[in-house]
Amino acid sequence: MNENRTIVAISTPIGIGATAIVRISGQKALEITQKITKKINFIPRYATLCCVYNSSEEILDEVIVIYFKAPASYTREDVCEIQCHGGVVSAKIILQTCLERGAILAAPGEFSKRAFLNGRIDFSQINALSKIIQSKSERASKILAKQLKGELGRFVDDLRQNLLRVLAHSEVMIDYSEEDIPSNIISNISLQIKEIQGILKSVYEFSKMRQGIIDGHRLSIIGKPNVGKSSVLNAILLYERAITSPIAGTTRDTIEESVNIEGNVIRIVDTAGIRNSKDEIESLGIKKSIDSMFESDIILAVFDLSRNIDNEDIEIIKLLNTQKNKHCIIAFNKSDLSPAFSHADIQNLIKIPYENIKISTKDLQNCTLLLKKTFVKVLQKDEVGDEILLTSEFQLEAIKKAIESLENAACVFEKLELELFSYNITEAISHISSITQPYEIGEMFDKMFGEFCLGK
Amino acid sequence: MNENRTIVAISTPIGIGATAIVRISGQKALEITQKITKKINFIPRYATLCCVYNSSEEILDEVIVIYFKAPASYTREDVCEIQCHGGVVSAKIILQTCLERGAILAAPGEFSKRAFLNGRIDFSQINALSKIIQSKSERASKILAKQLKGELGRFVDDLRQNLLRVLAHSEVMIDYSEEDIPSNIISNISLQIKEIQGILKSVYEFSKMRQGIIDGHRLSIIGKPNVGKSSVLNAILLYERAITSPIAGTTRDTIEESVNIEGNVIRIVDTAGIRNSKDEIESLGIKKSIDSMFESDIILAVFDLSRNIDNEDIEIIKLLNTQKNKHCIIAFNKSDLSPAFSHADIQNLIKIPYENIKISTKDLQNCTLLLKKTFVKVLQKDEVGDEILLTSEFQLEAIKKAIESLENAACVFEKLELELFSYNITEAISHISSITQPYEIGEMFDKMFGEFCLGK
Repeated sequence: MNENRTIVAISTPIGIGATAIVRISGQKALEITQKITKKINFIPRYATLCCVYNSSEEILDEVIVIYFKAPASYTREDVCEIQCHGGVVSAKIILQTCLERGAILAAPGEFSKRAFLNGRIDFSQINALSKIIQSKSERASKILAKQLKGELGRFVDDLRQNLLRVLAHSEVMIDYSEEDIPSNIISNISLQIKEIQGILKSVYEFSKMRQGIIDGHRLSIIGKPNVGKSSVLNAILLYERAITSPIAGTTRDTIEESVNIEGNVIRIVDTAGIRNSKDEIESLGIKKSIDSMFESDIILAVFDLSRNIDNEDIEIIKLLNTQKNKHCIIAFNKSDLSPAFSHADIQNLIKIPYENIKISTKDLQNCTLLLKKTFVKVLQKDEVGDEILLTSEFQLEAIKKAIESLENAACVFEKLELELFSYNITEAISHISSITQPYEIGEMFDKMFGEFCLGK
Repeated sequence: MNENRTIVAISTPIGIGATAIVRISGQKALEITQKITKKINFIPRYATLCCVYNSSEEILDEVIVIYFKAPASYTREDVCEIQCHGGVVSAKIILQTCLERGAILAAPGEFSKRAFLNGRIDFSQINALSKIIQSKSERASKILAKQLKGELGRFVDDLRQNLLRVLAHSEVMIDYSEEDIPSNIISNISLQIKEIQGILKSVYEFSKMRQGIIDGHRLSIIGKPNVGKSSVLNAILLYERAITSPIAGTTRDTIEESVNIEGNVIRIVDTAGIRNSKDEIESLGIKKSIDSMFESDIILAVFDLSRNIDNEDIEIIKLLNTQKNKHCIIAFNKSDLSPAFSHADIQNLIKIPYENIKISTKDLQNCTLLLKKTFVKVLQKDEVGDEILLTSEFQLEAIKKAIESLENAACVFEKLELELFSYNITEAISHISSITQPYEIGEMFDKMFGEFCLGK
């Protein structure tokens, strides 16, 4: 990392607009700004109207400069913000002039990286920042704004404190011989671990279920071949997008469409029918269907009410049972024909919570209404109030690992293997802490900042 | 106009970026900002870090607010700028909150309209602003930045002063009987009018020739049918974009492509061959060709060197002669065949300045080289130093009308019709002044601001 370099980037989107911002950060930020504006006195945080000139003394634009003196800036370095006229060219030629005067083009996320390295923000705030910029929904934006204020950071700190306390208590036990350890200390530690485990699990499940809010909802339509999955997609979209035909295995690849349901954008994936197939291409399609289901937060499983439940249906139900912490809707299609089985016949096979509806894609409009009503019901379950919401795969993974470490800790604690216990608790602390202060900075770090846009 | 309304808009482009700006202007700008940030003290021009809340007290984003106290602001009203996180959502929900608190969504260009109405900028600066935002070239951007500083405004003021002086001098003449007017006064006034006419004409011609710099160059390829216009286009593009065939009249419609020649983007229009035709569809195409030529700043006229000059070629030359103040290139094509005429044969027919080249589209690569070299030569003529450049159709039209008024004035002055003279000079003044202070505010005004983007 070259933190001595002064970096520059355009921090507003490229496009037609009234205003654009060029942002400079580093030791030379003020000096470069003074050179290009031919102005010396910049009062910190004070908006100053001036002109930017190139090295041939030509006026490039009339701008407003705001100087943020270190450490009271986003990066905790000297930062100058140059507000110039919008459009594609003005910001670019000012950027060019800064480069000519010795600034270096910032890498994506480099401003935030410096803010993190200089202790201005923690890792959970960086995650929120990166997500807020790419967010497409108001709900996501509000949740992320709370994280930006450090809410998740405080949650992590509390957990860490509690685990450190557990660790301290267990240290006391080492002073006793195994038989003499007071039973209240043992039960107290067990209780504390169970409590923290409980918190972590509920945050994990709550968050896992709601990933769609932040990353966008993704709904997979699954089922064995020829139960009418493509017709269900058409019902959702209310037009003939997918090819529907009565030959089993028509949809060999996944088909994606987006719908907007009460402000929630849902990406809908119609998948190939799932069954054991010797057809190589069909098998590939089936693999994609299953992958797609794993990536979705909402699963719509379609069954054909007019045919008897067979092994292929049972396989679908088994797959469904692996999809915990997701929204599941079971649609019994072809309700216009005489039924070969009923909901009750399969009810006890399904181990996860679900909504169920009877539909007939023959009556497209009614089917559409029913499906959308069910979607709204499902999305309403997603409400987030004051609960902690993990907003990235990385955070979920960290909490999952912490839960595992705590399970291991509980297990060795029963056998009073105190050293192993300490090791597992320390592991749990380290996993939880990684949400705000990751230790493995290298690869993951660059990946994280690489997802940023320029100028942040 | 409802100037009492407080207006709000997002002034940065919509898209993925680190930062976005929501701008509020009007009497309630500060009050609305105080309400949504729950903060009272905003020091003028000082960047203040705070949060924006919605009416349910939910945090929407962490932002930087800059308050510009009237009249030291862009609109000369109270202005608050809210710098929030970029992306699509954050700025939108802050905008929404401002609307809920009583601001009105600004119309495109409404901030600039207020800046104009409150005397902060003149009309030529507004024109420069609108163009700078949409500018695609660095050259255009620099020229417009100078206009933004009021350069054209000063030029207009000088001219107006000079014309007012002429008017004053002519008033003196009214005190004399026709025979007694001192001849030095008469000659002096004539001289001054001629001088101003000269300035106006040279600015007009200089600017007319260079409209491509600001609005983007547009090159029309014209010629009678089957001289190889489409092959010439292919030579420029170096690939087979247009259908070329030896049947006269193949290109019935115009075909457009863009090329980038040393940083200058040139839009190239291949037109239908121009000739007298009874085919209705072909005639339509020919009309389009001629229209296209009128809209271009560069004309590339193609002649077939292997066939004798005929009436159709003569018609093309006549058309060319009407295209003053444009760049003209004459290409003698099919130089690989034995020539039926030479450049000298038509030289005296052409009344406008032009470049001429001999090409053979049979040798595509060589032809491409020759054409591009000629384009560069032509574009170099466009250099703009300290000269005044009119940058809009409206400004050109105003100067053209002023020239006409001065011609009329000179004409009636010879006959010493002094009242008519005064009238025409006043007309000229009014045309010139319209560049900075248009009198006919209504329709033209709204059209002008309508071209703006939101938030400016």
